[in-house]
Amino acid sequence: MADALTAEDLKDILEFTVSLARKAGSIIREGSEAIQSASQQDGVNEKKNAIDLVTEYDVKVEEFVQNTLKSKYPTFKFIGEESYSAGHRPPLTDDPTFCVDPIDGTTNFVHGFPFVCISLGLIYKRRPVLGVIYNPMLDQLYTGVTGQGSFLIRGPNSEPVKLPLASPPKPLHSLSQALIAVEWGHDRQEPNISAKSTSFRRLVGDPSKGVPGGKMAHALRSVGSAALNISLVAQGGLDLYWEIGCYPWDVCAGMVVAEEAGCIFTGSHEIFKKQSLEDFGDITEEILTGRKYVVVRAIGDVGEKRKIAQRRIVEEFYETVEDMSLN
Amino acid sequence: MADALTAEDLKDILEFTVSLARKAGSIIREGSEAIQSASQQDGVNEKKNAIDLVTEYDVKVEEFVQNTLKSKYPTFKFIGEESYSAGHRPPLTDDPTFCVDPIDGTTNFVHGFPFVCISLGLIYKRRPVLGVIYNPMLDQLYTGVTGQGSFLIRGPNSEPVKLPLASPPKPLHSLSQALIAVEWGHDRQEPNISAKSTSFRRLVGDPSKGVPGGKMAHALRSVGSAALNISLVAQGGLDLYWEIGCYPWDVCAGMVVAEEAGCIFTGSHEIFKKQSLEDFGDITEEILTGRKYVVVRAIGDVGEKRKIAQRRIVEEFYETVEDMSLN
Repeated sequence: MADALTAEDLKDILEFTVSLARKAGSIIREGSEAIQSASQQDGVNEKKNAIDLVTEYDVKVEEFVQNTLKSKYPTFKFIGEESYSAGHRPPLTDDPTFCVDPIDGTTNFVHGFPFVCISLGLIYKRRPVLGVIYNPMLDQLYTGVTGQGSFLIRGPNSEPVKLPLASPPKPLHSLSQALIAVEWGHDRQEPNISAKSTSFRRLVGDPSKGVPGGKMAHALRSVGSAALNISLVAQGGLDLYWEIGCYPWDVCAGMVVAEEAGCIFTGSHEIFKKQSLEDFGDITEEILTGRKYVVVRAIGDVGEKRKIAQRRIVEEFYETVEDMSLN
Repeated sequence: MADALTAEDLKDILEFTVSLARKAGSIIREGSEAIQSASQQDGVNEKKNAIDLVTEYDVKVEEFVQNTLKSKYPTFKFIGEESYSAGHRPPLTDDPTFCVDPIDGTTNFVHGFPFVCISLGLIYKRRPVLGVIYNPMLDQLYTGVTGQGSFLIRGPNSEPVKLPLASPPKPLHSLSQALIAVEWGHDRQEPNISAKSTSFRRLVGDPSKGVPGGKMAHALRSVGSAALNISLVAQGGLDLYWEIGCYPWDVCAGMVVAEEAGCIFTGSHEIFKKQSLEDFGDITEEILTGRKYVVVRAIGDVGEKRKIAQRRIVEEFYETVEDMSLN
């Protein structure tokens, strides 16, 4: 491979990482079964055993993915939970950098709720350029490469289907028509938990029946995996996804899948307000690492008209929900 | 078939209804694609067209299912959205009565969110005795027959797997360990919407960080289909599901799938408080038609010990959430 990553290089990396994600998926599925059988063998101590197994499989998948990527791409860098939790945030560089969450949807993994995936992203010149997201429980694989489109492969022997599934995509005039993904997340303290419940109440509430500022959104959904929520927006099955508190490795792969499916990705309300229409849709380092995200699906027309429609939805959304500080 | 339904009769009915559900599923999948292509052909008028198509496919599936069941089982009765919306609630009788929701998860169906199913139940002597739930978008089929177990079939050529998936199931000592399904639902007025958001906040909140009565549940999930939420509890992928406002045809099939998987089904807080330990788990007509439901997965040991553990979870749950009036 040359120093600069070409479109051909990205194609090769996609082929390699798709195969890797499927293998990692087998380990995840095996882990899910092992966690179930842990409780069979040991009733009272099940909790400890199950947690040990979760950690064991998390490490197992992470090591497998890292080692495989390192031996194939020895010069590429890595960003993941491991590097952040070591106490510092390694600065992004222009080098190709894998940004991987080996098991996204850990709570689901523990409980056997089938929204679990490996999320495998590649950053190049500080921008996400490739994403592979594989849910081994439902056998659904999402891929995206900058400039080469994003795709969904359902089941073992299916052809890739281009995203979004509706082409051209349906219009979306306001939140009142929207199916929105939100998550309660891991931050359970005040005032954040009230900010969330108030925001959700406004999104669904009827303004003519006692909910001031209510938007009467079609419905709210929560499946518990950032990467799969983003994939569902890319697919067109969700109109918008809001997330506060997750990390680059939870969203990096999804950003490419979403962007190539005509979605718009932006950051916090503050970042959004600073963006000109031209900037809007540019996934900067500030957005990638900002831990606050909104993604809106492709809407109607292409080009500037689409961006204006997506911008209107984000505006309405940020007027409705409350901001909160990160922990 | 004899006047009284035997175990053999139920086996035959199961075989017939599974085949019927798969055929209905094909129509649902076809409808989902048609709704997507409606927007391709007609940008501005898309909304009306999509809604027409939703109604069209809802009627199409309902008629197909009703006609097929009527010609095969001409003496059986029917309960469904149609019979209720005609303005009266037909009283339950001892006769075999199909209780069917042709498309459960209509909002998901409209949006292309892949949690959509046909829910096909049979009531006999005023008790649900057979359930078939088929999600054609993810190709997942759940079945249950009273006394004959419940099963999940994933994909086209798979063997049925007995539910729950973990056997014996994991313990569950309190809500703090639980993955709970809730839904915002269609009732968007005050005071109900605040009762819901307060209840959800308490379920997830940290009592030591400003949320009085907070239970710190592992997480909340919302997939937008009652029948599939119940199926996920039966499977063991969710610990508890709470629903207010849905109808017998949304839950009837799931009740059998859940009961045969060792789950406990109960009704409103009021009904629950009246139940002795012996009554607890008996799916009465009052529960079936009461429109308020809690279902808890199989827990640890069998028999009375399990019931006591499940009862403890329901008690803790109803102490946490707020009741609301039905619309």
